[in-house]
Amino acid sequence: MGIRSLLNPRSIAIVGASDKIGPGFNAWNALKHVGYEGKVYLVNPNKPDLLGQKAYPSLRDIDGEVDAVFIAVKAESVLEVATQAVEKRAGALAILSSGFGDAGDAGLVLQQELSQFAQANDLAVCGPNCLGLLNFSGRSALFGTSLPDSVKRGGIAAVVQSGSIGIALLNSGRGLGLSHLVTSGNEAVTATADYLEAFVDDPAVSTVIVFAEQIRKPQKFIAVAARAAAATKPVIVLKSGRSERGRAAVMAHTGAVAGSVEACDAALRDAGVIQVFTLDELIETAALVSQIRTKPRARKVAALSLSGGEIALAVDAAEENGVVFAAVGPAQAGLQSLLPPFAHISNPLDLTWAGLYDPKVAEGCARALADLDDVGTMVLLQDAPTGLGAQQAARYSGLLKAVATGVQAAGKPLVAVSNLSDEPHPELARVARETGVPYLRGTREGLFAIARYAAQRPPRERPPSDPRERAAALERWDRLQGNPMPAEHEARAVLESYGIRGPEERFVHTPDEAAAAARVIGFPVVLKAIVAGVVHKSDAGLVKLRLASEESVRDAAAKMAKPNLGFLVQKMITPIAELLVGARVDPDFGPLVVVGAGGVNVELYKDVSVSTAPISEPDALAALTSTRIARTLDGWRGAARGDTKAAARTIAALSRFIADFADDFQEVELNPLAVLEEGNGCLALDCVIVPRGK
Amino acid sequence: MGIRSLLNPRSIAIVGASDKIGPGFNAWNALKHVGYEGKVYLVNPNKPDLLGQKAYPSLRDIDGEVDAVFIAVKAESVLEVATQAVEKRAGALAILSSGFGDAGDAGLVLQQELSQFAQANDLAVCGPNCLGLLNFSGRSALFGTSLPDSVKRGGIAAVVQSGSIGIALLNSGRGLGLSHLVTSGNEAVTATADYLEAFVDDPAVSTVIVFAEQIRKPQKFIAVAARAAAATKPVIVLKSGRSERGRAAVMAHTGAVAGSVEACDAALRDAGVIQVFTLDELIETAALVSQIRTKPRARKVAALSLSGGEIALAVDAAEENGVVFAAVGPAQAGLQSLLPPFAHISNPLDLTWAGLYDPKVAEGCARALADLDDVGTMVLLQDAPTGLGAQQAARYSGLLKAVATGVQAAGKPLVAVSNLSDEPHPELARVARETGVPYLRGTREGLFAIARYAAQRPPRERPPSDPRERAAALERWDRLQGNPMPAEHEARAVLESYGIRGPEERFVHTPDEAAAAARVIGFPVVLKAIVAGVVHKSDAGLVKLRLASEESVRDAAAKMAKPNLGFLVQKMITPIAELLVGARVDPDFGPLVVVGAGGVNVELYKDVSVSTAPISEPDALAALTSTRIARTLDGWRGAARGDTKAAARTIAALSRFIADFADDFQEVELNPLAVLEEGNGCLALDCVIVPRGK
Repeated sequence: MGIRSLLNPRSIAIVGASDKIGPGFNAWNALKHVGYEGKVYLVNPNKPDLLGQKAYPSLRDIDGEVDAVFIAVKAESVLEVATQAVEKRAGALAILSSGFGDAGDAGLVLQQELSQFAQANDLAVCGPNCLGLLNFSGRSALFGTSLPDSVKRGGIAAVVQSGSIGIALLNSGRGLGLSHLVTSGNEAVTATADYLEAFVDDPAVSTVIVFAEQIRKPQKFIAVAARAAAATKPVIVLKSGRSERGRAAVMAHTGAVAGSVEACDAALRDAGVIQVFTLDELIETAALVSQIRTKPRARKVAALSLSGGEIALAVDAAEENGVVFAAVGPAQAGLQSLLPPFAHISNPLDLTWAGLYDPKVAEGCARALADLDDVGTMVLLQDAPTGLGAQQAARYSGLLKAVATGVQAAGKPLVAVSNLSDEPHPELARVARETGVPYLRGTREGLFAIARYAAQRPPRERPPSDPRERAAALERWDRLQGNPMPAEHEARAVLESYGIRGPEERFVHTPDEAAAAARVIGFPVVLKAIVAGVVHKSDAGLVKLRLASEESVRDAAAKMAKPNLGFLVQKMITPIAELLVGARVDPDFGPLVVVGAGGVNVELYKDVSVSTAPISEPDALAALTSTRIARTLDGWRGAARGDTKAAARTIAALSRFIADFADDFQEVELNPLAVLEEGNGCLALDCVIVPRGK
Repeated sequence: MGIRSLLNPRSIAIVGASDKIGPGFNAWNALKHVGYEGKVYLVNPNKPDLLGQKAYPSLRDIDGEVDAVFIAVKAESVLEVATQAVEKRAGALAILSSGFGDAGDAGLVLQQELSQFAQANDLAVCGPNCLGLLNFSGRSALFGTSLPDSVKRGGIAAVVQSGSIGIALLNSGRGLGLSHLVTSGNEAVTATADYLEAFVDDPAVSTVIVFAEQIRKPQKFIAVAARAAAATKPVIVLKSGRSERGRAAVMAHTGAVAGSVEACDAALRDAGVIQVFTLDELIETAALVSQIRTKPRARKVAALSLSGGEIALAVDAAEENGVVFAAVGPAQAGLQSLLPPFAHISNPLDLTWAGLYDPKVAEGCARALADLDDVGTMVLLQDAPTGLGAQQAARYSGLLKAVATGVQAAGKPLVAVSNLSDEPHPELARVARETGVPYLRGTREGLFAIARYAAQRPPRERPPSDPRERAAALERWDRLQGNPMPAEHEARAVLESYGIRGPEERFVHTPDEAAAAARVIGFPVVLKAIVAGVVHKSDAGLVKLRLASEESVRDAAAKMAKPNLGFLVQKMITPIAELLVGARVDPDFGPLVVVGAGGVNVELYKDVSVSTAPISEPDALAALTSTRIARTLDGWRGAARGDTKAAARTIAALSRFIADFADDFQEVELNPLAVLEEGNGCLALDCVIVPRGK
């Protein structure tokens, strides 16, 4: 109910209304600007009338219904106004006032009071510490800053935590078509996730763009974003705070390589969200996906240009952003017949002067490339700066028309990209509008947006949980009760319930027993001393590799740190590659699974892929394959191929385990997971389980 | 002489002059546009007069002196015109015609003829396949495309290989102040290096920007660029062709990680060139360094903003680009006294509303940060989109003025950055102009440019060659004559002349000799079989590690591939870390030295630093420290510190070797170089020398 009152209020009271420039005055103007048709009440204790209508001393004095209240008073007075609003049965407040969570400890206390009050009274609240919101499609506003003369309307709903980003979007010459602009501020009550939920069901909204400094109500955000993506409403998120600073210390490696930033990235990606990293990328991507609503039929791209220089820069930007150009293949002969004999036939294609001077050549070439089965998106690369001479602008717009005609005949989308972030020449912009072609700005940002458009995916499906696995693990875990930090072999025993295997091993208590165990297992062996609380055994000198005789096992065991809980004797394994496979429960985004390079490389290169758990085996294989270390499993430098399928099975198993036990464990790690030759499986050479609260 | 005729011709003939839109007509207009004062001759065989003056049937018919000739005729006719130009003693040609190196094999032949003809006759040539050139400061033009009504003049000389990039620069709303624009096209004769040479000595030029698809005359380019940097004329280079495709196969690892792209990057960096990667970065960086001509007095940066959201995005972009924000330190108290009590004092600093409404607060905060000793550059972050309301624009420009006043009082430069690539609001642009503050566009591009400005360096100095090292290596090399591909121990012997050491080793011929050698060296040992022509011994199964007894050495030797040239028995070394140290001679940029992670990581992570050789020991240490693997030498995870100084000594030694023998060897590699504990030096565990022509 509250959010409806916020986004579509039946009536509005402006507390702090004024006829002087300032929030109260701007709020009144904003309502005129959007054409609000509901009743507007002005509240000002010092004036009986204002702006040509009656003003009320307080909310209490208003005789009619008040659905939403615009508040721009001092922070200390906000709760009193909120109390009156509840008396008037208002459903929503837009609180512009700063001095809450943004203002030290005292402000934080005030914000908590506000938050509790709003929840108790079922109030939706925009802010505090924001500029309010605009609903262009539904014609309402609770907005306290001046507006440009005209704002382009369209299907894009924007939710931004920062007012200055809101101002940038609203006033940008880029001209995104907006349905809503919400500046959500401190999100003391109503969060981006709540607005997003409303937009998923709003037919006026085709695309949602989000700028967030912190994603509040993260589980709801991810669930709603996935619903939006499934409903083919693209959600584009710019999340700040990627800096290395301030990452939490963690016990195992998983947390170091899959911290809060990586958790957020994985959760967004798996929910089908399009993530961007700069404001310009946000705008270009939104311009593209809001204008071309159909998904591309194929993943690859073909591009046309008049310039080798432009093509060279586009090829670099394409590689940087993961745009894949299709092979010319079957289009070769057709293109050759259209272009001069010296033309170099490739994709991107240089149309040469022939393409500029003869529209039929450009149209034919565009058609030939667009007809390729594996091309889903066509691109025209142009140098289209604002100040282009009229002569050139006319030629370039003729080219754009011809290419659009050819591409449209093939039934595929065309995107134009200017090689500069300049506003494209007005004539080109006009032709682009008329032909329905998005005109993106800047080679890098343009190809970034095209890559995101071409790679749009539905939210990832989750494999079901297997209650038998869970029960088996629980039983083994219960046997360890009383041990707050299980030893390697104990952890392995629990994980075996999910099909995770280790090397042949014996747990023994004396050097002599260790020597005997080694004889049974067969040489060479690995000897490990188990010491309570020590997770990184190698660093602590508690691991000896490649012991080749009983005598060396006995000697090594005798020398190892005492007191210890016993010795683990394991068969020495020489794998194709060693991976890190880990899982942890992120406080915001829940269970995650991580795969990547093990050993020293984990922290040095962060060559990992992070996914939300649980994950299916095919998705686990894709995650593994996306790492660089996976290349060493692929017959690297003459070595045998590794058992990647078994590795994927193990990754998926660990992801089910962490998802099943998200309340019980905070981190689980197989490091290394030894991947053997194809067909021989893989073995967890070390296992760590960190229960919650450790 | 030729280049003077090209850039500052005393008189010009336009071959292909016309009164109809096209190159010949545009060339005439371009001369009017720049205000050319020399004599202009029109050549057109079909018209006795044109554009209000006499026209000549051919160059031969002109009665006066012709210094430069503008040529826009068919490729086939170009050489005939060139011949006539030489008869007229012209010094330069601007050839717009395509159909040369850009047009297949036949065109390439034509281009070679042109090139030879021009060289024989001392002709400078712009093009072919270009748009010609403009000299705004010297008021001349040989330019065949239409111009915008006005082009902003200034100290930036642009040399671009691609006409479309030239059009983008010329017509961009960004308004760089240009002194010259050269579209150099195929560079059949006169190359970017030649133009750059002319600009270094031209007082009208303060900054040179280059777009190159291929750097021709690379050695000259690097030498001239270094001269420009030393003369504090920044040279900014955008070089396309960074894509992975088309890298050459090489024998050792060095070439795989230090290919032509990395060679070019290293050569540009070491020459003091500022390298950029997109056209927008080129423009923003040029806007900054052309406007602020003094170098920053310190490396770090301080920034001000009104928005937490803006700051969050700027912090991310700063980390991405290597901008380092100074600690607030001694400014803390001063800032606290100026801002409201709840304000969070940090850098970047959120000025809060207090900074917006009271110019004295903004000025004081700016001054306090600018006064910090380690701050060299001040930044104001704003949301300044084109369509900003008048009310906000007025406030924001007031803020800009106040901040500029505070920063100028501290005698440091201020840069404003708009959070969008939009053209900033005209009022802000005006105030920025008046206060001499560059207004950059887009948070990412802006911070990229600031990082490059803050990190400007003079060209790197080269250590001198030591003739004794060279003579000693030569003598040892001569002893190996007849062996086209020296074995590991032979290569090591040569490199020892430069102070490069290996582990204790013996070269023997039989398994029994190997066992005896191992006993003398002490166990464990490494056994290697030397087989003619095999470089990657491990991959070929010719290396056995950790052999711990005479018996195991004898057995292993007996089993190794035959025929072999003998066995190398080496002391088994357990280092702190293993590096790759390699060197090669790039055909374009000359000798290079490479340091980075050895083993499988070389190719997997390309964690290397490439420098031009020779390199000093301090520079070698900096190169090493810039790699990630260097962290493992720094007391990583409780291990001892590695002897980084010895590693730097070895890198510098190998760089001197490759520089001394650039004509004799194409690749040299120490892989791995074992770095021992601090004070114990480092040892080349394997050595490869690839003579030229291998």
